[in-house]
Amino acid sequence: MANQTKPIIHGYFRSSCSWRVRIDFALKGIEFDQVPVNLIKDGGQQFTEQYKGLNPIQQVPAVQIDGITLSQSLAVIQYIEETRRGHRLLPTDPKKCAQVHMISDFIASGIQPVQNLYVLQKLRAEKVQWAHNFIQRGFEALEPILKETAGKYCVRDEISMADICLVPQVYNAERSGCCSVPNKRLNQTVLKVDAFKESHPSCQLDTPFRGK
Amino acid sequence: MANQTKPIIHGYFRSSCSWRVRIDFALKGIEFDQVPVNLIKDGGQQFTEQYKGLNPIQQVPAVQIDGITLSQSLAVIQYIEETRRGHRLLPTDPKKCAQVHMISDFIASGIQPVQNLYVLQKLRAEKVQWAHNFIQRGFEALEPILKETAGKYCVRDEISMADICLVPQVYNAERSGCCSVPNKRLNQTVLKVDAFKESHPSCQLDTPFRGK
Repeated sequence: MANQTKPIIHGYFRSSCSWRVRIDFALKGIEFDQVPVNLIKDGGQQFTEQYKGLNPIQQVPAVQIDGITLSQSLAVIQYIEETRRGHRLLPTDPKKCAQVHMISDFIASGIQPVQNLYVLQKLRAEKVQWAHNFIQRGFEALEPILKETAGKYCVRDEISMADICLVPQVYNAERSGCCSVPNKRLNQTVLKVDAFKESHPSCQLDTPFRGK
Repeated sequence: MANQTKPIIHGYFRSSCSWRVRIDFALKGIEFDQVPVNLIKDGGQQFTEQYKGLNPIQQVPAVQIDGITLSQSLAVIQYIEETRRGHRLLPTDPKKCAQVHMISDFIASGIQPVQNLYVLQKLRAEKVQWAHNFIQRGFEALEPILKETAGKYCVRDEISMADICLVPQVYNAERSGCCSVPNKRLNQTVLKVDAFKESHPSCQLDTPFRGK
């Protein structure tokens, strides 16, 4: 596998999907460069022709790695799983692995997209309530699933892709002012892991007022 | 792998996510039973306590297989890939596989969720325009990606999970009245494959006025 140059994450400190990839790289011990794409400034730097050329989907993250450009955070995580050593994020047992995928996909498809910035901008006035509804409904649905699957982490006692999806989503929920965030114990346990701390939106290259 | 009983798909003929799983089972030659869950009738049968017990996410499909219940169509497809023989839907080459995941995840997270029934019901009046916007924007973004990856099918010349995601999304686009559906050639080629025909929403157990 060609791997002479460091991968580049084009991302935004606060984007939960960018954070997923940062956690993954940190867990795997992969060094990377970051190019900040400010989703707010100048009407959104993701809409420039230059960024569109890199990622036609015009969202973050986009990752340049091994000569290709990948968008979609879970596709990146899966690619890293297949091409790099280090902490396994997809269990080898097919049933456990399916549960990791189910939880990850539900967060990535069922919760995050309907409360992301692009959708909220379309909605304007109603947006806070909208985001609350979806996050709340999503977490309520996740609770009985996690009751079945969780040990110390989302699926048994190993950190997996599911934890990488859960933690940034809880962060989004807290930011949007959701009063009752479930899965608190799990989330707090995972947040103690170094990879989750160093990749946290509060301490990134493009975080304003870092450390304050 | 325990596999004495046929898997059961709890789905809806018109749900694009249910269709993804039907295509997958057809491609793999897996016999299955279906339990229709009518998303419209009685205010939505997915909201019954009985269905909620089966799938807390209260969406279709939910698949009972090998003693577990899985929701999230891509998690199901991935599980089938790992536990059943037959047509490979995830290429063994990691870069090709990453492209399959990227396209699949973009459709499953970036296009489908913001135009699904639950979201549209929340929006009511604006819903047609909303769905059009998202589908249109999604397909426009997909076009340059497919230009890079496609051969006869979405990624080179083998049917993959990406095709399973594309075809039902084009069907949704056409149903919602989108006037310019891109990827027409690809979609038409894939639709000629038996697995896509027999799993089509027009000819399912719960399709009203079947064959008319």
